[in-house]
Amino acid sequence: MRSNLWPTFAACGRCCSAANLFARYFETGVPILPSETIVTFNRLKAFIQEALTRLGLPAADAATVAALMAEADLQGSDGHGVTRLPQYARRIKAGGFNVRPDIRVVHDQISTAVVNGDNGMGHLVMKRAAEIAIEKARASGIAWVNSQFSNHAGPASLYASMPLAHDMIGLYFAVGNANHLPPWGGLDMLLSTNPIAAAIPAGDEKPVILDMATTVAAYGKVKTKALRGETMPEGWMIDREGKPLTDPNRADEGMLLPLGGMEAGYKGYGLAMIIGLLAGTLGGAAMGREVIDFNHDDDSVTNTGQAIAAIDIAAFGDVAVFKRSVDALVRDFRNSSRMPGVDRILVPGERSHETRARRTRLGIPIAPALLRGLDQVADELGIAKLA
Amino acid sequence: MRSNLWPTFAACGRCCSAANLFARYFETGVPILPSETIVTFNRLKAFIQEALTRLGLPAADAATVAALMAEADLQGSDGHGVTRLPQYARRIKAGGFNVRPDIRVVHDQISTAVVNGDNGMGHLVMKRAAEIAIEKARASGIAWVNSQFSNHAGPASLYASMPLAHDMIGLYFAVGNANHLPPWGGLDMLLSTNPIAAAIPAGDEKPVILDMATTVAAYGKVKTKALRGETMPEGWMIDREGKPLTDPNRADEGMLLPLGGMEAGYKGYGLAMIIGLLAGTLGGAAMGREVIDFNHDDDSVTNTGQAIAAIDIAAFGDVAVFKRSVDALVRDFRNSSRMPGVDRILVPGERSHETRARRTRLGIPIAPALLRGLDQVADELGIAKLA
Repeated sequence: MRSNLWPTFAACGRCCSAANLFARYFETGVPILPSETIVTFNRLKAFIQEALTRLGLPAADAATVAALMAEADLQGSDGHGVTRLPQYARRIKAGGFNVRPDIRVVHDQISTAVVNGDNGMGHLVMKRAAEIAIEKARASGIAWVNSQFSNHAGPASLYASMPLAHDMIGLYFAVGNANHLPPWGGLDMLLSTNPIAAAIPAGDEKPVILDMATTVAAYGKVKTKALRGETMPEGWMIDREGKPLTDPNRADEGMLLPLGGMEAGYKGYGLAMIIGLLAGTLGGAAMGREVIDFNHDDDSVTNTGQAIAAIDIAAFGDVAVFKRSVDALVRDFRNSSRMPGVDRILVPGERSHETRARRTRLGIPIAPALLRGLDQVADELGIAKLA
Repeated sequence: MRSNLWPTFAACGRCCSAANLFARYFETGVPILPSETIVTFNRLKAFIQEALTRLGLPAADAATVAALMAEADLQGSDGHGVTRLPQYARRIKAGGFNVRPDIRVVHDQISTAVVNGDNGMGHLVMKRAAEIAIEKARASGIAWVNSQFSNHAGPASLYASMPLAHDMIGLYFAVGNANHLPPWGGLDMLLSTNPIAAAIPAGDEKPVILDMATTVAAYGKVKTKALRGETMPEGWMIDREGKPLTDPNRADEGMLLPLGGMEAGYKGYGLAMIIGLLAGTLGGAAMGREVIDFNHDDDSVTNTGQAIAAIDIAAFGDVAVFKRSVDALVRDFRNSSRMPGVDRILVPGERSHETRARRTRLGIPIAPALLRGLDQVADELGIAKLA
């Protein structure tokens, strides 16, 4: 087990920004590249907020989305934060997002709801969905809320984590916004890397937070390999003959392998399909052939679906006892015997918590290519540049 | 992508009976081994029921457990059906199961419950838990029920499938009954191959049913390789140095790799931990170091935990529309383009449905070694042999 796998631990597996490359230098203590720019969370949030306001979002909505996007960068989900702003801006200008959505509950039961996002930004839709789930779970023990006509909402862990402050467990499932995965044994891209996230409260320890795509490697990791001129390890992708594909420049000729790889990829495929049914089909949102590739289409309504569940720990027993049990488990895992060459045993979410703490203290690194893209957005909108 | 991977598709990944070896001949149409015995579902069920009754279970409980165990064999979950009877018998005799349990709800909310199984057989506990979940979901849209002081309950898919008849989705999570998995990078076996199962109703198509362990390969698949004198592929197990372990006879020196393998095993590890927290810790059941290896311990109370959720599709929209959408997806997947050498695109559960239909028609194959074990149980209990 190679210790160079560790830095990827807390990644959601779907990050796809060149910023990751530079962030790594920052995270690992290697001197920051002179070309890299460091901004505070507040500055980043204010910049995004101003951009979204100029793009037509109401002030409160712009503030909500900006806070969630900047939070994504703060916790190290670099592929889902400000790096998406140029794309979001393009899509808003093309009419692909509704900037004044009437987000509303279209199905309502004691412990469930379906929220129609009216094609608004996904952050707004899923924040609302999470709030409804939390409120309903407080009354009945658990609640499950689906979205329809939602959009890309950033990292899954953001929403799975929202119930934590209420001593609740959060679960989150999403249909991704581009199909990169065929059925097992197939060639047609019918599935996205549909992510699953779970957040479990602890006591003195940080919450346990899993956020993972259901493919072995993220498409963004493939892009990073291409940028570096490196080959991919066998197991990330296969070509249309089912043979390993290791040249990242030939990525268009192949497909991602589902979690489990050649040996057990039918499991990752099965998970991706189930998540798609739960997050998409159940709420009346797109799944399979209906999924719009929003990287190559700025104006079609995506009808993105997500699902969030909130589980109230108090309904299952004493909250303090539960938290002590989670603390004990985390410590048991952390202090357990390690393989040769392994420095630390991590639990899910630990790397993100550390990144968040470090970036809160030292700021958020913005890679030169990303900064150029953001400067262009600023120019187009007539607002002050990020830095 | 090798077509010889297909037969494993519908396996839960935790089967561990030599019967699998022989069942394969049966399933694939290759002539049945002369030494193999074929029994009907009803005969198998009656045999198990009589054995459990002699072992002290009340008649109704014996019938319930027998039906579920025989159903496991019928659907091809050979590692979780009658093959477990000798072990269950041994455990009952050793006092490790309570044959007259007071199974009761110890925490109750509108949409949640915790069922204390009083150390009864897991089948009884989880059938009760499923019934409660279905009843509560009918009233509120979703329900989630945890067990504590439960026991091994057979294949996860049995319980995830119970809500199907009520036009509900079923989800099931369990803490396995033996730790075979260390944390990522670690050596201490702190996790089981904690399975997840999901069952989604369709219309004209069969339901989509996923049932998977969170390791690449099942421990039972390792045992099968040893029986055959074959080596394991790289990616199933590693030794304590983190190097690939391919000699199944050295399995004791190594550990299973979590789903994702060397490239992305931190994901399978994360899933196993989250499932353990949801199915074990949340309900006050064993997790981590507390888990009893019930293969090597016949009398300790295992305090096994499972969780089942039922989601009422009617709460999210029109049930018929949902089912038509699932049908359309299944057909889209099935009819999509295939890789060279791949005969069929399967959706999760399809192989199990076929096995169930075939065994209903032709009977259930019992391997010689298993039959010898069952004969011994029959002799000890003074009941008629299975066949």
